[in-house]
Amino acid sequence: MANHTDKISVETSETSKINTVDFSNLDFGRVFTDHMFVCDYEDGKWQDPKIMPYQAMTFEPSARVFHYGQAVFEGMKAYKDDDGKVFLFRPKANFDRINKSSGRLAMPAFPENYFFEGLEALLKLDNDWIKPGVGNSLYLRPFVIATEPAISASPANMYRFMIICSPAKSYYNSAVRVLIADHFSRSANGGVGAAKAAGNYAAQFYPTSLAQKKGFQQVVWTDADTHTLLEEAGTMNVFFRVNDTLITAPTSDRILDGVTRKSIIQLAEDLGITCDVRAVTVAEIKAAAKDGSLKEIFGAGTAAVISPISAFEHQDELFEISGVDAEDSYAKLFKQTLLNIQHNLSDDKHGWRHEVK
Amino acid sequence: MANHTDKISVETSETSKINTVDFSNLDFGRVFTDHMFVCDYEDGKWQDPKIMPYQAMTFEPSARVFHYGQAVFEGMKAYKDDDGKVFLFRPKANFDRINKSSGRLAMPAFPENYFFEGLEALLKLDNDWIKPGVGNSLYLRPFVIATEPAISASPANMYRFMIICSPAKSYYNSAVRVLIADHFSRSANGGVGAAKAAGNYAAQFYPTSLAQKKGFQQVVWTDADTHTLLEEAGTMNVFFRVNDTLITAPTSDRILDGVTRKSIIQLAEDLGITCDVRAVTVAEIKAAAKDGSLKEIFGAGTAAVISPISAFEHQDELFEISGVDAEDSYAKLFKQTLLNIQHNLSDDKHGWRHEVK
Repeated sequence: MANHTDKISVETSETSKINTVDFSNLDFGRVFTDHMFVCDYEDGKWQDPKIMPYQAMTFEPSARVFHYGQAVFEGMKAYKDDDGKVFLFRPKANFDRINKSSGRLAMPAFPENYFFEGLEALLKLDNDWIKPGVGNSLYLRPFVIATEPAISASPANMYRFMIICSPAKSYYNSAVRVLIADHFSRSANGGVGAAKAAGNYAAQFYPTSLAQKKGFQQVVWTDADTHTLLEEAGTMNVFFRVNDTLITAPTSDRILDGVTRKSIIQLAEDLGITCDVRAVTVAEIKAAAKDGSLKEIFGAGTAAVISPISAFEHQDELFEISGVDAEDSYAKLFKQTLLNIQHNLSDDKHGWRHEVK
Repeated sequence: MANHTDKISVETSETSKINTVDFSNLDFGRVFTDHMFVCDYEDGKWQDPKIMPYQAMTFEPSARVFHYGQAVFEGMKAYKDDDGKVFLFRPKANFDRINKSSGRLAMPAFPENYFFEGLEALLKLDNDWIKPGVGNSLYLRPFVIATEPAISASPANMYRFMIICSPAKSYYNSAVRVLIADHFSRSANGGVGAAKAAGNYAAQFYPTSLAQKKGFQQVVWTDADTHTLLEEAGTMNVFFRVNDTLITAPTSDRILDGVTRKSIIQLAEDLGITCDVRAVTVAEIKAAAKDGSLKEIFGAGTAAVISPISAFEHQDELFEISGVDAEDSYAKLFKQTLLNIQHNLSDDKHGWRHEVK
């Protein structure tokens, strides 16, 4: 059935899949809601956006995304409070970043009104898929891909912007063990590390699989030149607590400007915790682990919120971190503080919550 | 209509598009032949390969290639001599490289017999699309993409290997002008620059577009650390002729091991031309341009074969290269020598021609 809102054409699904889904047992990113948002770029402009039933789509084998990797994405979450109100968290930051990512890959910027109207229309249609309760959320995946059917190595003239939605269960994840990179690299100076570019992720899978064979879940990447500077974990920015001071690397063209990262920096200031944003060396963190001043390491990102790190290895030296389960850990404090803001359980002095009405 | 060879299931096209194609006026990579080769990876192994009419295919919006860039490819050409015999050029090098690229992106290797049987069956079916005459060829694009419908950031469990074919007209291209990179980079030490990974290409489009606005067609990439070493041009390896000596950078994890590149190094030896494979600095090439010893620069790759470079700019200093049109240029010599081998017009002492029978 086709009908129209003021701005977006909407074709709703005849039936819902929601009753087939076990919300207590969700595997991340495999189940999608009933609808998706689609907007094509052709003839030099974004065409009329539409919402349609979630479905497979046809692409030419020569579509440029398959050959030259013009693809960027975002990760966001929608939260529901106990009154049924729905919130996004700092969505403008994701909007700004997807266009920054697109620009770095020579892809056109997406209009802000389409982005927000698309998100809000989708969340109204698929409202029942957002479950209340701290930790539950609907993961939102905006992405843009080059669809032009031509394999010349140049920017495409046709793109597709989409938003798909996947219910996500609370991450009560256990702490992870990480390997610090000393050979492979995630990004180059002057490269695309600061963009949420699809190719940045594929590039990490093989080195990460080697780390996993050694018993580590993730790699903490270092600078490609010297492997002496700690940068990010590929799907998370990384924070170090030395005594009572937090340290995290500054963003650069190699490091993603994470929304959770910058929220933690602000919350630290609010909470009176010193957070130094500066280059962090592998050597100083190893020294701090040895002298007992390294209390915690944690990752910060939209999917995991805060992910405590219980051990790291560098060049065959293994360090266990004793403070990982402490009741007064910063990881627990920041995670709870963030979740309370996201789920409308506490004040929102910075205006980070965006209610979907 | 479906029928079967011994190894590959073949569904032939009911009609051919070939009469709709103007072979004297081909835009690179936009026209495809009547058939394509497809093989899916599922349940831990490559399934039965098939040939089918060239067509659009359905993909889930959550297919991992759209999100995490697990995609690699190759570029090859088929040539026809005046007797109608069809040849590939060093196809084993492309086969080896696509599996090397796949390995770097944590993707499964493709079986050698499927690769060659697929190519040969396709070329027999679409034989009429290969036009004789030096410079004409059928461009072949093997590629592999991650198809698993799940957006968790980890290697996929489902892939699709395909070969599509596009007739290519002779490149009697004029010389190109290039900009030497001093800010942006193509690849990192320990990164994926040596792989023909899709994301490597998207990453170059924006810096290349900036160069094009300044009147340069391509960028010659330098090392990301210091921008002092000349590496490759993104779709071509690069050779410098200083007096009568050729110089080209060694391959590394930042530089693609080009088939045309290594063929030129061998042909130089055959022809008694010294070819130094060593680090090449921007400074020495600028000095050679100033003192007159820099005679030529040219790119080498499958699509363009040999592409002479008539000028380069580095940090706002422009250098015109006078020898670019000389009758005794190495670029002309190597291009003719390669084309003669590829089109069965000369001896093939290294066994580079692979006849498709």
